[in-house]
Amino acid sequence: VATDTEASPLPRFADRLAAVVAGRESQVVLGLDPDPVRLWPQALDSVPAEGPPAERAARAVVAHCRALIDAAGPACVAAKPQLACFERLGAPGWAALAEVVEHARAAGLLVLADGKRGDIAVSAAAYGQALVGATPTPFGEVAGLGADAVTASPYLGIDTLETLLEATREARAGMFVLVRTSNPGAADLEDAELAEGGPLWERVARIVHDLGTVGGAGDSPSLHDVGAVVGATVPEHIGRMRELMPRTVFLLPGIGAQGGRVEDLAPAFAPHRAAGLVTASRSIATAHERGDGVSPADAARAEAERLRAAAWALA
Amino acid sequence: VATDTEASPLPRFADRLAAVVAGRESQVVLGLDPDPVRLWPQALDSVPAEGPPAERAARAVVAHCRALIDAAGPACVAAKPQLACFERLGAPGWAALAEVVEHARAAGLLVLADGKRGDIAVSAAAYGQALVGATPTPFGEVAGLGADAVTASPYLGIDTLETLLEATREARAGMFVLVRTSNPGAADLEDAELAEGGPLWERVARIVHDLGTVGGAGDSPSLHDVGAVVGATVPEHIGRMRELMPRTVFLLPGIGAQGGRVEDLAPAFAPHRAAGLVTASRSIATAHERGDGVSPADAARAEAERLRAAAWALA
Repeated sequence: VATDTEASPLPRFADRLAAVVAGRESQVVLGLDPDPVRLWPQALDSVPAEGPPAERAARAVVAHCRALIDAAGPACVAAKPQLACFERLGAPGWAALAEVVEHARAAGLLVLADGKRGDIAVSAAAYGQALVGATPTPFGEVAGLGADAVTASPYLGIDTLETLLEATREARAGMFVLVRTSNPGAADLEDAELAEGGPLWERVARIVHDLGTVGGAGDSPSLHDVGAVVGATVPEHIGRMRELMPRTVFLLPGIGAQGGRVEDLAPAFAPHRAAGLVTASRSIATAHERGDGVSPADAARAEAERLRAAAWALA
Repeated sequence: VATDTEASPLPRFADRLAAVVAGRESQVVLGLDPDPVRLWPQALDSVPAEGPPAERAARAVVAHCRALIDAAGPACVAAKPQLACFERLGAPGWAALAEVVEHARAAGLLVLADGKRGDIAVSAAAYGQALVGATPTPFGEVAGLGADAVTASPYLGIDTLETLLEATREARAGMFVLVRTSNPGAADLEDAELAEGGPLWERVARIVHDLGTVGGAGDSPSLHDVGAVVGATVPEHIGRMRELMPRTVFLLPGIGAQGGRVEDLAPAFAPHRAAGLVTASRSIATAHERGDGVSPADAARAEAERLRAAAWALA
């Protein structure tokens, strides 16, 4: 019988993820949050001596991200560009983002476009076109960013998530929904106690599980194509999350700079090696600032490898 | 005594808004959601015969938005570009966005950058740089979009809103926080009943009021610089919103294509003419499709004027 996988050359996101996790023995996601005033010094070398600041800064950002990917990428399974950091450089920033995405893919990494988008259906569809799909125009189709997955904000409700999910599924991509984030303000709404019992984030967790269950079943690892962003700073929640979302891939920010410890994440990996992804940005990119004369690339490589080994040892 | 306004040449957002509302006798916000396959026919005329599809589509989008602003703008107080619609054309799309923003400002309109951003503090700060501020780089400062206000999503909590608010206040810009949106899925989380009583959106409304109260007091109209996105499709909520947020500017989507009626919005305008902004996108841009041979520009002009008069008559 013809399966969906045979009809399409590209495996679904969860299967691609499981393959690269197994192949690299890693669950580390390399966050790319380039700040133009905190780039690796070598990134400035390749920048033209003349030109508009936005163009020159975008060149430096590309050089920085490429070097970071080259150094830390082999210990990672995915790169996660933070869209805000590119958008602030305008059109040259968006062009830089596309270049960085291309470089990450060439390095064998999946790409998670981290924009935490959430909007009414017609706009959610446009975000889908921008990040994982393509936009029809009278002049031909315009390809989007070609990300393997996106992050999404649930505040506007299920219909808006479904629209974005339709776009990601059509592209065989994944969608990670914010469930319980790693910042202090997560207490304000995400932890709000509902009249039905339990915090708001538990309702979101159920929505995420349901969205992943319907229409998202895959072949091998039984992981959903709808993931959850789950802050690593509150490890006591992770077991409960796992009960509510047994087949959901958790994207776990907050390790390192935000205070989370990789050792606390074991429940995330319980159903499958690929069911927990540890994201780290500043702790990798700025590792040299905590070392003694080591180069940024060597320090990043070592820190990514340290994280990789620590997480892999848990599963 | 030197006031804050004397120290800075730019009045705060709420005061700029009040001035343009009074000057134009309008509370209409022109939504710009350009879909490359549904542009006004004239927009295609100025597009070069050759070139990459994204570049050509971006030219057409700029021409469409300019024509729409020229036609409907005089009946409006602000333009609200939907960022998703520009991002889907990549770097040329972001360049188009910057051009459209410039055209809107030249037409005397305030600009509300509608991206519904919401992220942890460091990323929220980057969105602030992208949309209302500027980004320091080793090559000089890179100016952001220069919007007069942004839309923001509250899911991640107060600390993330405060960071974006810091950026908007520094730019004398406004921030509109999603409170209760106009889509069906708003029932899923926004309407979730809390253990403390009342729906989640009431807690968000209190947060919005508090954020606007602290540090945001202005001169003349006593309107806060933190606004609220309040769907016009559920008019029975608007009175309650007004109780919870007596000095908040409401951005009211959902009129027209989504089924809301301007006649139901009177409570929004109760504290001040500028305290309610009626946004309309498709109903203005596609007005000619419901007319008999009238040009897109004439139909848009008439529809914007109809909305303007209907809303102004309420206040």
